[in-house]
Amino acid sequence: MRAYNFSAGPAMLPLAVLEQARSELTDWGGSGMSVMEVSHRGKAFVACAAQAEALLREVLGVPDDYKVLFLQGGASAQFDAIPLNLTQPGEIVDFLNTGQWSTKAIAASKRQGLQVEVIADEKASNYTTVPAPGSYQVNPAAAYLHYTPNETIGGVEFDHIPASGEVPLVADFSSTILSRPIDVSGYGLIYAGAQKNMGPSGLCVVIVREDLLGHARSATPAVLEYAGMAASDSMLNTPPTFSIYLLGLILAWVKSNGGLTAMAERNRAKADALYTAIDDSPFYRNPVAPNARSWMNVPFLVADPALEKPFVAEAAAAGLTNLAGHRSVGGMRASIYNAMPIEGVNALIDFMADFERRNG
Amino acid sequence: MRAYNFSAGPAMLPLAVLEQARSELTDWGGSGMSVMEVSHRGKAFVACAAQAEALLREVLGVPDDYKVLFLQGGASAQFDAIPLNLTQPGEIVDFLNTGQWSTKAIAASKRQGLQVEVIADEKASNYTTVPAPGSYQVNPAAAYLHYTPNETIGGVEFDHIPASGEVPLVADFSSTILSRPIDVSGYGLIYAGAQKNMGPSGLCVVIVREDLLGHARSATPAVLEYAGMAASDSMLNTPPTFSIYLLGLILAWVKSNGGLTAMAERNRAKADALYTAIDDSPFYRNPVAPNARSWMNVPFLVADPALEKPFVAEAAAAGLTNLAGHRSVGGMRASIYNAMPIEGVNALIDFMADFERRNG
Repeated sequence: MRAYNFSAGPAMLPLAVLEQARSELTDWGGSGMSVMEVSHRGKAFVACAAQAEALLREVLGVPDDYKVLFLQGGASAQFDAIPLNLTQPGEIVDFLNTGQWSTKAIAASKRQGLQVEVIADEKASNYTTVPAPGSYQVNPAAAYLHYTPNETIGGVEFDHIPASGEVPLVADFSSTILSRPIDVSGYGLIYAGAQKNMGPSGLCVVIVREDLLGHARSATPAVLEYAGMAASDSMLNTPPTFSIYLLGLILAWVKSNGGLTAMAERNRAKADALYTAIDDSPFYRNPVAPNARSWMNVPFLVADPALEKPFVAEAAAAGLTNLAGHRSVGGMRASIYNAMPIEGVNALIDFMADFERRNG
Repeated sequence: MRAYNFSAGPAMLPLAVLEQARSELTDWGGSGMSVMEVSHRGKAFVACAAQAEALLREVLGVPDDYKVLFLQGGASAQFDAIPLNLTQPGEIVDFLNTGQWSTKAIAASKRQGLQVEVIADEKASNYTTVPAPGSYQVNPAAAYLHYTPNETIGGVEFDHIPASGEVPLVADFSSTILSRPIDVSGYGLIYAGAQKNMGPSGLCVVIVREDLLGHARSATPAVLEYAGMAASDSMLNTPPTFSIYLLGLILAWVKSNGGLTAMAERNRAKADALYTAIDDSPFYRNPVAPNARSWMNVPFLVADPALEKPFVAEAAAAGLTNLAGHRSVGGMRASIYNAMPIEGVNALIDFMADFERRNG
């Protein structure tokens, strides 16, 4: 029996994708080899990677003047790589700080010698809010404005795209990419670790406007240098082939299920159902400001922290797994990415009601 | 039908390992989840990664005062990461240059501001030799001596461990790790991309003596900073979980097949058979000096380059795949890592004889 897996990432994958991967795991396309065993420079895999990129461009609507890069090291590698590629030491970069992932990106920018201006910081609300449009001022001299559209740990999501004028907008879309349409043309650079909506861990997608390339610092490690990676179709060195193959399968699944508009409808319905259940109950609560609630990561609390461990354990026994909150914040958290069906969310809501009856 | 796959990497994997991965691809250990879908911080995966490390330590005989790191970005990422972790700009590092991978590592060290001394360079032989012991002098002031035990493209392998005195020895073991016993205690740092003898691409193993840690440059990207990775059991950020799981399966396969002593015997027998067939034929030749011939990567040439494409195509049709030489050198190349059975090598030898009869 398959679990309803609420892990924040690595996360649930579509069963149809796993079953296809399984069916060809020892013999990919009649080659007598696994996709994991073939040369990344062979025709078959080059076509596989090109197909994944083409599907990503189609599904996400990536304009022609943007490069798509398949990199390694997760979004965390990009925290350093973005400054290395887009700035020189001493330059100004602006940040909106909405929680732990913003904070890590800020730390890396400081490590890379940048003059970091945090133009909005939601510390006062304990990172349960997003800054209101117009409440922050972007420095026109900044190399870019960085923000985190969705904070996976806090479950806090922007309800608007920050206006940055002529300053390029840089965004960590790790936990929301492919969950709904994005206007890529509004961004200078988008990056996202794959392990939430795009496959297993070990792959990071960077989508960057071409005019931002070619200005990397001279000591940028080659595997993190965007222009070189773009020029070699992300095959300067051996790419994570199996992860790229799975990304292609997932994109085909997204497309065949109606694309990002359909994903957005499904995800909104799932999130609405779960937040409604939480709000309607005196037993559970979500700490996030209503306008900033994430569609993807739904943290929730009970009044008595001693009930958290039983909740998580009993839910797991009922096939609802990985519901513990992030170790830094406690509580519970349900991550409900594209691959989580509405049936899983409904099963969680039913379990929550039952747990409340028994413990409320 | 499974192919005999001679790819240089990503490369053939043991069928037993692929079959186990397939059998639990949608339900790992009765969890109702794929190993790809579980949190890297959950008990099950933490145990899986710890087991992979323990097996690697056992199989390879890693001393207790060495850290084992599971990183991303391949060996190419380490070309930059080693200077960033072990040196400051302006320091001296010594290199033995035996071909294309040495050359790339040298270029990265220069990019990181080091004073590179190439104390032996096999250019005169067109990189078909290794420097003789005693023919080069290590600078006692060097931060380390770097060499490439096996050049995957040239098929050139050291027949000795370079003596470096008190200077730490650093080695790129990408294409020979797990192929035979290594005395890890003779090295300061060993690194290896996984995609030859250790699994799919997307994982790089670094084994480093503890006293070399803690001296990284301040701007080292966090995902490449060894001390931080060591302190977090390689989980500073999300690791490539599926690759680590497969590494564990492969190590269990190596162990159950007699460990590295048995691997060495098998690999020596395979290489001996193939080199003997090449040497006994007037039609084929291997350009490498006999003492420097690789057990893992066997390049071979025919007098008429026009026969190369038919050779590769006809071999593939016969189930012997990926025999084209590296695009930079042409010819043919048979990579015969641990997972290639002697039957595959014998099938190649038979095909070569048949091709010679028809074209010689």
